Amino acid sequence: MRIGVVAPSTPIGRDVAERVTALAAEHAPGVEVRFHEQCFLGHRHFAGADRVRADAFVETANDPQINALWFARGGYGSCRIAEEVLARLGAAAGDKTYLGYSDAGFLLAGLYRAGIGKVAHGPMPGDLRRENGGAAIVRALSWLTRGEPKALEPSLGSGVKAAAFNITVFSQLLGTPLQPDLQGHVLILEDVSEYMYRTDRALFHITSNPAVRKVSGIMLGRCSEVPQNDPDFGETEEEVFRHWCTRSGIAFLGRADVGHDADNKVVPFGSSC
Amino acid sequence: MRIGVVAPSTPIGRDVAERVTALAAEHAPGVEVRFHEQCFLGHRHFAGADRVRADAFVETANDPQINALWFARGGYGSCRIAEEVLARLGAAAGDKTYLGYSDAGFLLAGLYRAGIGKVAHGPMPGDLRRENGGAAIVRALSWLTRGEPKALEPSLGSGVKAAAFNITVFSQLLGTPLQPDLQGHVLILEDVSEYMYRTDRALFHITSNPAVRKVSGIMLGRCSEVPQNDPDFGETEEEVFRHWCTRSGIAFLGRADVGHDADNKVVPFGSSC
Repeated sequence: MRIGVVAPSTPIGRDVAERVTALAAEHAPGVEVRFHEQCFLGHRHFAGADRVRADAFVETANDPQINALWFARGGYGSCRIAEEVLARLGAAAGDKTYLGYSDAGFLLAGLYRAGIGKVAHGPMPGDLRRENGGAAIVRALSWLTRGEPKALEPSLGSGVKAAAFNITVFSQLLGTPLQPDLQGHVLILEDVSEYMYRTDRALFHITSNPAVRKVSGIMLGRCSEVPQNDPDFGETEEEVFRHWCTRSGIAFLGRADVGHDADNKVVPFGSSC
Repeated sequence: MRIGVVAPSTPIGRDVAERVTALAAEHAPGVEVRFHEQCFLGHRHFAGADRVRADAFVETANDPQINALWFARGGYGSCRIAEEVLARLGAAAGDKTYLGYSDAGFLLAGLYRAGIGKVAHGPMPGDLRRENGGAAIVRALSWLTRGEPKALEPSLGSGVKAAAFNITVFSQLLGTPLQPDLQGHVLILEDVSEYMYRTDRALFHITSNPAVRKVSGIMLGRCSEVPQNDPDFGETEEEVFRHWCTRSGIAFLGRADVGHDADNKVVPFGSSC
């Protein structure tokens, strides 16, 4: 099995690639994790210019020798290349697993909407830098290489359709050609480093969208590193979610083990079991 | 003439109300500026609880003795009450001018979509605290009371249809029941205190929206107090706007004299002359 790593958003360091490769050798022997050179490029905010990142993604996705495309890390940048990338994908791209989260959500959304490959929200190589980050890498590898059930968000059972997104990213793709049809899906949402008033505003946006109102329910992952606001917003993220779910008539289905941290579980889009 | 001030977002101080009232007495004699007591309330993040803010807005908008509803200031909160407010407006609300900007954009959008009253983007009483803020107040009063042409964004000429919004607010109302039909309009956008990568992401969102692509063009107001990012985003707001306008096939029509500052000119929605 061969996993190709590309960085449609921001770059990672070679040290991260080396340590992830070593973890793969230990925990998934026989699996090759191939980091595209593009992962290490720097261009302003991005891991290379738009064209360079798009080319690396397309080259990897269209390579029939590669079984899975693993997003290197989040940050910002994948919305700038998503439409071009999707238009250039061929047959081999459909026979592949895609794993990432956060800013990668723009591409996961577009892939899922287009029915290309098997799409999942979960840990990325860049998570290695988090506290206990190695556990996230090993979890991702266990799911990519052998579909390990323990890697999955526990609520995902037989026949449950799901999708997971960063709140801000999902908000910013609503109404664009990347917005997937999530009718009948459990929509799992998480975020990091957002003021609570922004999360509240994004939930207004998300739950007011007529297509989103067709989900079977919303689950809340973790909202971590919420900056202090003056005055305090006065509601927790769970209160914010309950407020907007009640107002929009969407079922609130509780908490999910998903977030910007090493505990982040895998959420395959669609039906996972 | 009577102007009613309400605060659908965050509160103002009584000192601001007193100084605005004094400016009105000096520059618009015979005009009464009536600050609703709700403007001075505090409830967590907001100028009173949702119901309290909604009630004050509806009471003022539905009062036939009041000619104009002036938003006290921005902040955050109007999206939480917009749909309820709009559903409760009666005939007198349609015979009124509405002036505000920033977070008030959620309500301006919904009013304009519903064809209620005369809607405009422009200075608010809370702007008094800005450097040279008195000039913004006097400008707003000159337009509200006598339709002073010098108060208007200069590009607005005969027959030009326009609308203006805060970038983040406009992004967050796309696809909701508040999104107005801006076909054939010049869309003027401004923002404050947003990282440039966020402005770039919001422009992806805005210019990818099929309804937004029917505008006659986009103008860029000011993006002020942009926080420094590491690494630097490497593009100015004008470069960001040109990038997304080119990609989406929307005409970029240059700069507008609109923003979170005392120079902020008035942009009546629709055709202003």
